[in-house]
Amino acid sequence: MNIKYTRVVDKLPSLVPFVGPEAQERSMEKIFNARIGANESVFGPSLKAISAMEKEINHTWKYADPENYDLKLALANKHNVNFDNIIVGEGIDGLLGYLVRLLVEKGDNVVTTDGAYPTFNYHVEGFGGVLHKIPFKNDTEDLEKLLSKAKETSAKILYVSNPNNPMGTINSTLSIKKLIDNLPKKTLLCLDEAYADFVSLDLIPEISTNTPNVIRMRTFSKAYGMAGARVGYGIGAKELILNFEKIRNHFGMSRISQVGALASLEDFEFINNVVLKVRLSLEKIAKIAVYNNCRVLPSHTNFIAIDCCKDVDFAKRVLDNLILQGVFVRMPYSNPQNRCIRVTAGLDEDIKLFEQAFPIALKKSE
Amino acid sequence: MNIKYTRVVDKLPSLVPFVGPEAQERSMEKIFNARIGANESVFGPSLKAISAMEKEINHTWKYADPENYDLKLALANKHNVNFDNIIVGEGIDGLLGYLVRLLVEKGDNVVTTDGAYPTFNYHVEGFGGVLHKIPFKNDTEDLEKLLSKAKETSAKILYVSNPNNPMGTINSTLSIKKLIDNLPKKTLLCLDEAYADFVSLDLIPEISTNTPNVIRMRTFSKAYGMAGARVGYGIGAKELILNFEKIRNHFGMSRISQVGALASLEDFEFINNVVLKVRLSLEKIAKIAVYNNCRVLPSHTNFIAIDCCKDVDFAKRVLDNLILQGVFVRMPYSNPQNRCIRVTAGLDEDIKLFEQAFPIALKKSE
Repeated sequence: MNIKYTRVVDKLPSLVPFVGPEAQERSMEKIFNARIGANESVFGPSLKAISAMEKEINHTWKYADPENYDLKLALANKHNVNFDNIIVGEGIDGLLGYLVRLLVEKGDNVVTTDGAYPTFNYHVEGFGGVLHKIPFKNDTEDLEKLLSKAKETSAKILYVSNPNNPMGTINSTLSIKKLIDNLPKKTLLCLDEAYADFVSLDLIPEISTNTPNVIRMRTFSKAYGMAGARVGYGIGAKELILNFEKIRNHFGMSRISQVGALASLEDFEFINNVVLKVRLSLEKIAKIAVYNNCRVLPSHTNFIAIDCCKDVDFAKRVLDNLILQGVFVRMPYSNPQNRCIRVTAGLDEDIKLFEQAFPIALKKSE
Repeated sequence: MNIKYTRVVDKLPSLVPFVGPEAQERSMEKIFNARIGANESVFGPSLKAISAMEKEINHTWKYADPENYDLKLALANKHNVNFDNIIVGEGIDGLLGYLVRLLVEKGDNVVTTDGAYPTFNYHVEGFGGVLHKIPFKNDTEDLEKLLSKAKETSAKILYVSNPNNPMGTINSTLSIKKLIDNLPKKTLLCLDEAYADFVSLDLIPEISTNTPNVIRMRTFSKAYGMAGARVGYGIGAKELILNFEKIRNHFGMSRISQVGALASLEDFEFINNVVLKVRLSLEKIAKIAVYNNCRVLPSHTNFIAIDCCKDVDFAKRVLDNLILQGVFVRMPYSNPQNRCIRVTAGLDEDIKLFEQAFPIALKKSE
């Protein structure tokens, strides 16, 4: 080999953070009948977004506005913050990459929960950071231990998802505020709130944008039903947000996506309707789980963790069998969370397929 | 300030590589009448792409296939290379960022042409690389001097755009082959061929994908008329391509864009038609330039550099006046290339507006 990669890249494994359902479909040589595994929103985008995207196709020969001006303005209004408290990027995935790049050098410490979002870990390792993982406590992120680990390691970033993925649980606003108050000054809290739109407002902490070491991440991939459009954003202190401008791919956004996201913000009824549909769907999934002698975790998201009440090998067999039956679901990575499978809210026909497949999967896994 | 950014980020300026026309429109408080400045294709995407994108809007709730499988397969077929010789990313801009990240550490040397693509330079500086810039020679990239500078500095990357932006000139296939044959083993040649679709095949060098230290970059932003969709790709040796997997944002692609790009590859007539329209449009622009006592450079792209035959201050005044008249154009950065303005092929109505505005701009700039 002649080309010399950077020292960090040279040591990276060739692993990818996620395998997509399309790859599974290709290897099975069949299409999933129910796609309820990636916490996408099968309820789709707002009709206003759809109409705006349709119209914008004629303008896709133009680069998108690199400043994301209109979208940032609308988001600033929505969250009652200033324009320069908002950074828009290619999904939370893209923003997490930028954030890690801003802060993490080779050997820097980063703290997260064991079993939390793999793409965050992927970025940390991709920039040479050292991950410290704290186990879930009762299937909830253990803020106290996360904080002490951040202190102990002088972590550059502490990653907390709230509500969290893959368990669907939430930490109280009080505990989040306490965490922020006690954060080491050199640690940035990355609060991943991808699922915040499913949560009633009183469960979301108020955080002043004067707080220099907190960024909250939001997305159009979940409640807004636009995962394929790749629009995420961060809310944070002006100085932090400004630093993204130094490194981000200014022309990274799709023009159609930008316009779709903006239009969906103008559809005030939309989110309430989705949240209702999701709640009803999750109730049905929960009923099916309980009917089959499983338990469910309380969910504050658009998915639900079903505790199969046995060990990881059993849950893995259940998962594999569901996939074999054409039902795409996923499961947590960490132990003992991997006693569960994770099912995303679906349409009635998706849930019906799950209802048929689940008892078969349980039985075949015994 | 409490948060400590990386040493590289800490020293980065807050400059952005480009200002978009939308920002200019906002500051002028009016919309451009002719958008012929960013080398976008006003002729738009293939009708097949448009139709495919329209249909895909209903599926935008799903993440895109992170492997870009179908698109990669189609591109491999198109270029008669293997599937694993192709990397798809968020425009060439995104891929350039990944490439630099793979290879450039703080202090590493990189060679480019003075006045070549600013976004490449932005990424190099963004990862702490040191740029060495070689002047154009007769408005063409000076491959001999670029090569000797790469040797002299043990450059990690040598960036060559062919045909080049912003001058529109091309280097011979023979000279490119000679460059590759003499490349230092530790230098990767990044051959940016964004405009290759406008060039007849015999002017494009054949490069074996066994060549370990060359990557060619292509895009759907130019001839394919999908700049707003953000789809670019690289063609290179398997090992190099595999390394992108370690760091790229696997879920960075828009699903609608993916599908649009794929569909446009299936429209065999499309590119020929666009190339013809572009040629006719550039001929009209050239005539207007000559009529107004300017000269034009030979163009192998979808834009043309008009030599205003005076100095940079004059050209800058001409540019500013065109913008004032609602005609969006740009100009080269380096001297003496900045004696020119750069005009992109347009529709007849765009060219008519330019025809009216240009003599006024020239006169007011005297």
